[in-house]
Amino acid sequence: MATVLILMGSQSDWPTMQKAAYMLKDLGVSWEAKVVSAHRTPDLLKSSMEQAEKDDVKVVIAGAGGAAHLPGMLAAHTSIPVLGVPVSSKQLKGLDSLLSIVQMPKGVAVGTLAIGDAGAANAGLLAAQIVGSFDATVRQRVTEFRNQQRDKVMANADLELPQ
Amino acid sequence: MATVLILMGSQSDWPTMQKAAYMLKDLGVSWEAKVVSAHRTPDLLKSSMEQAEKDDVKVVIAGAGGAAHLPGMLAAHTSIPVLGVPVSSKQLKGLDSLLSIVQMPKGVAVGTLAIGDAGAANAGLLAAQIVGSFDATVRQRVTEFRNQQRDKVMANADLELPQ
Amino acid sequence: MATVLILMGSQSDWPTMQKAAYMLKDLGVSWEAKVVSAHRTPDLLKSSMEQAEKDDVKVVIAGAGGAAHLPGMLAAHTSIPVLGVPVSSKQLKGLDSLLSIVQMPKGVAVGTLAIGDAGAANAGLLAAQIVGSFDATVRQRVTEFRNQQRDKVMANADLELPQ
Amino acid sequence: MATVLILMGSQSDWPTMQKAAYMLKDLGVSWEAKVVSAHRTPDLLKSSMEQAEKDDVKVVIAGAGGAAHLPGMLAAHTSIPVLGVPVSSKQLKGLDSLLSIVQMPKGVAVGTLAIGDAGAANAGLLAAQIVGSFDATVRQRVTEFRNQQRDKVMANADLELPQ
Amino acid sequence: MATVLILMGSQSDWPTMQKAAYMLKDLGVSWEAKVVSAHRTPDLLKSSMEQAEKDDVKVVIAGAGGAAHLPGMLAAHTSIPVLGVPVSSKQLKGLDSLLSIVQMPKGVAVGTLAIGDAGAANAGLLAAQIVGSFDATVRQRVTEFRNQQRDKVMANADLELPQ
Amino acid sequence: MATVLILMGSQSDWPTMQKAAYMLKDLGVSWEAKVVSAHRTPDLLKSSMEQAEKDDVKVVIAGAGGAAHLPGMLAAHTSIPVLGVPVSSKQLKGLDSLLSIVQMPKGVAVGTLAIGDAGAANAGLLAAQIVGSFDATVRQRVTEFRNQQRDKVMANADLELPQ
Amino acid sequence: MATVLILMGSQSDWPTMQKAAYMLKDLGVSWEAKVVSAHRTPDLLKSSMEQAEKDDVKVVIAGAGGAAHLPGMLAAHTSIPVLGVPVSSKQLKGLDSLLSIVQMPKGVAVGTLAIGDAGAANAGLLAAQIVGSFDATVRQRVTEFRNQQRDKVMANADLELPQ
Amino acid sequence: MATVLILMGSQSDWPTMQKAAYMLKDLGVSWEAKVVSAHRTPDLLKSSMEQAEKDDVKVVIAGAGGAAHLPGMLAAHTSIPVLGVPVSSKQLKGLDSLLSIVQMPKGVAVGTLAIGDAGAANAGLLAAQIVGSFDATVRQRVTEFRNQQRDKVMANADLELPQ
Repeated sequence: MATVLILMGSQSDWPTMQKAAYMLKDLGVSWEAKVVSAHRTPDLLKSSMEQAEKDDVKVVIAGAGGAAHLPGMLAAHTSIPVLGVPVSSKQLKGLDSLLSIVQMPKGVAVGTLAIGDAGAANAGLLAAQIVGSFDATVRQRVTEFRNQQRDKVMANADLELPQ
Repeated sequence: MATVLILMGSQSDWPTMQKAAYMLKDLGVSWEAKVVSAHRTPDLLKSSMEQAEKDDVKVVIAGAGGAAHLPGMLAAHTSIPVLGVPVSSKQLKGLDSLLSIVQMPKGVAVGTLAIGDAGAANAGLLAAQIVGSFDATVRQRVTEFRNQQRDKVMANADLELPQ
Repeated sequence: MATVLILMGSQSDWPTMQKAAYMLKDLGVSWEAKVVSAHRTPDLLKSSMEQAEKDDVKVVIAGAGGAAHLPGMLAAHTSIPVLGVPVSSKQLKGLDSLLSIVQMPKGVAVGTLAIGDAGAANAGLLAAQIVGSFDATVRQRVTEFRNQQRDKVMANADLELPQ
Repeated sequence: MATVLILMGSQSDWPTMQKAAYMLKDLGVSWEAKVVSAHRTPDLLKSSMEQAEKDDVKVVIAGAGGAAHLPGMLAAHTSIPVLGVPVSSKQLKGLDSLLSIVQMPKGVAVGTLAIGDAGAANAGLLAAQIVGSFDATVRQRVTEFRNQQRDKVMANADLELPQ
Repeated sequence: MATVLILMGSQSDWPTMQKAAYMLKDLGVSWEAKVVSAHRTPDLLKSSMEQAEKDDVKVVIAGAGGAAHLPGMLAAHTSIPVLGVPVSSKQLKGLDSLLSIVQMPKGVAVGTLAIGDAGAANAGLLAAQIVGSFDATVRQRVTEFRNQQRDKVMANADLELPQ
Repeated sequence: MATVLILMGSQSDWPTMQKAAYMLKDLGVSWEAKVVSAHRTPDLLKSSMEQAEKDDVKVVIAGAGGAAHLPGMLAAHTSIPVLGVPVSSKQLKGLDSLLSIVQMPKGVAVGTLAIGDAGAANAGLLAAQIVGSFDATVRQRVTEFRNQQRDKVMANADLELPQ
Repeated sequence: MATVLILMGSQSDWPTMQKAAYMLKDLGVSWEAKVVSAHRTPDLLKSSMEQAEKDDVKVVIAGAGGAAHLPGMLAAHTSIPVLGVPVSSKQLKGLDSLLSIVQMPKGVAVGTLAIGDAGAANAGLLAAQIVGSFDATVRQRVTEFRNQQRDKVMANADLELPQ
Repeated sequence: MATVLILMGSQSDWPTMQKAAYMLKDLGVSWEAKVVSAHRTPDLLKSSMEQAEKDDVKVVIAGAGGAAHLPGMLAAHTSIPVLGVPVSSKQLKGLDSLLSIVQMPKGVAVGTLAIGDAGAANAGLLAAQIVGSFDATVRQRVTEFRNQQRDKVMANADLELPQ
């Protein structure tokens, strides 16, 4: 059974949300991904969260765009921590998605990441960090990932103008 | 039983949403108002809409602020037309509420009104207009209301600088 | 005669507004579409609404972009409920269209949908829902449409990373 | 008969729009002010502009807030140049008013001023400048006003920290 | 000598600002166009406006993008009415240009048009309307242009879905 | 030693960030709060995170306003999950704070909450949910808190107009 | 003669711009403050910068609000580095001032600080840092100021909930 | 050793930041460019600024995008003046970068330039102007650059419509 459950409002969000899956895969944290639409399949909101609690899922990652209600509505149905990824929207470039996810009222929380691919990858990373707070092996893998990206920056730090 | 059901995410939205109730009262359309929180009472979303369909409610008006999910989530649970009122928020003055309500994906619709009191009053008016499309008495009252506000403008049209 | 009248400010809005027409067609609600420009043909505003009232049109859908005055000006001339579709604009991506349509003053209401194609399709859907509140056959078709889109999501819910 | 006609959507806009009247008065250009609501008295749009053309009004100044349709709709009904003043709105502070007035489509123009009092005063000034392009006496008064405000700045140019 | 002077901050603004020139040409109002950069040729601001006053220019149209200072700075140097065109900018799509032009302080006015091509064309139209307030021939041409665009809309008003 | 470490950029953020502390206190999760300024005490960023790792802190909550760099910079120095609270700013009402915190690049993640008090309270709640994923007692307390707020809404759901 | 020249568009900007003067005074850098309005006294732009070059002013600080042209126009007239302070505006809270100052085209630069008081104080600080790059005494004073503010944060770092 | 140090958060910022390097090269001011990521290599922030102070760097230019923390964090570690360049971001087009860089709290200053290429070039120009305030040769080169761009505008000032 998966440690992290990745849900999204539409199959068209998968190219973005894959970045979360790849990050979790790289960090050795098990995951499962499904489409659950807050608007088109509202009855799945409750059942999917009840199943997740039974399966002892540690973190839920939810991505949606526009009037993005999925992360907040999942959070309304579970005590598992929920991370939200604002998927970029066609007209307003995800500003609507961001505000719809992050501006939750007191009492139901969503930890929101950046708009688009970077946010999805970081949702995977933050989920791994959460698991790592209680699992030294995962913590270690996160630390190594961070060291690697530090080393990659430092190895290519000097810049020249093209000749 | 009420023709129009007015729901809102929090009792603190009632001073705004009262404007819808007063408008409906003035136009002789029966209404009922309740708090249903998308986030704090998610199980009521489905049951309240099932009850509304049984009660033959003609229009649902839903008001909420911030990451305002109530109107869209009610629309996800019913075929009754849903009108949304973005309640003003403390920091972003209802821009977050507006985008969270209006930017719905294809397949689940919310007819959105202006931010705040004017939007709430107009939600009542639009609900009455919807009823009026099928009920000549209500249509007539709407028309009279419009004539009255026209006459009020025209009676006070001339302006002078203060002496 | 048409149950729903679709008006737009310019022929260039038709590719967007067709989405409303297709939705209505799919849901078996009759419609008619015309160009009426608030700015270029202001004299048509009143006459088109008078004709619509005579024809017993149940809902008017109006789409426009930029300083989008058409929906609000039609609403000023009729008691028929008016739904507004903000058509995306070249520079500000429809944020101007949205605010110009939704922020109506108390006393004249426009039920506003999302910017662009999704909003146009949902205007058709919401118009059908309004008709469906008073016509069980249309209500039934809306419910079936909702069930179909639910089933489509559920049939393709599981996601895998590409190999 | 007035050279400049000042119209506004609501009596509540008068405290702002008075700034235009005072400026015109100071510059010796005759004016008249009235409430004409695009939404509440749409039939007055055409008749007021027909009367203005008969009266040989040289410039129309129109102020409105929120989904501000008055300036654009007046411009749709006349060839007299129309200047628009975005009146500040309660929630969005006139950003909605500004976009609703300035983002007119090709073919119907509104010369838009700043949001609020400064914009209203400048609408009066610009109207006087327009008249002044064809009337040397008014041009001269504008130039004197400009010299006075220059001199006032220069007379108080030096600044000290409070002791 | 030209009746309307079209100035812009950079030669790269000319494709936009040509729309003003074409409109004036169509309406039979003489014009001249030049590059004057508020930032790169500040000494030309004053001299160009002094020359314009000598040449009895009736309206100045100024276009600029980004931190667009040209329209306001020209207005600071002349009593001729100045119309401003916010040219679209690469990153913020002309929202910066719009605010930089329209939000002038009390005492120096710029009549601002829409962002981009539509705004430039309308600057030409509004300049012609201003001239037309004092010149019946130009007024007549403006009215005919308006009638033509009205007739063009009405001749193509009916819309069908593609087969 | 504290399970959750609450840091903020300035003592003036404490009235907001107290909401996180109260929530954690209510949910029986230990916490400690300190001022660490990314800009005024940059040397504390690294040392505070090293100490937190030694103390086995499970979650870091960081609040800051304006160009809010604290949450992201703490996240750069630790593998402990970091939650960010955008504190409202004087001019832009926390929109700057929000974007400065949430728009992190790929590889360093901050789970961002709403602007202001609600966000701070929810940061405390989400931290407790994270702990609760690995501690059934805390999970139980979170669930009870959620039940209580549900019951409070339901006990006061019916609304009447004031007499 | 002053090392730093502080200019502002209006006497009403002085309460904000004083923060720059106090900072410079604290850091022992001489300054002088004057009102020069880009729009009301355009002829002073050139002469004030010519005088500043003669006086060997090292840095110019310019503050303005709304369509804030002063910093950019000063920069157009001198090779002395210019720092810009967006003064908060009544309606748009300085977002217009910020974009009008910072979005300068290639070839004329303004180093822009934050909106309002913090930005003014930091303009004074940055001016002192610029002087300090070439004057070890001033550099030393800047470093001491930074140490003091670091120590003040650290002395009050621990936070308790009110009893 | 370089007079100006150009740092950026990622190698992907180099195409933008090269514009600063080219400007400095054209103006005969020595520079060096490196990648230092606030988030991925936080330990380099302090050491790079210590080295810069040893090397007597006169100005630091820092570019970053999104939640852009590099310029502010460098400023936190040095008394050398820091100029910030908001690199355009994929979704929000650099508005996030701009606010993250410019809205610094009192006590740590960043002189911010425009979003993207123009801002980078102007950062180079402003750095040269800063050096030029204390080095007559560089001042002279800046003045000549300004004269050249003025002459280029004036040589191509007249515009014709295409035949």
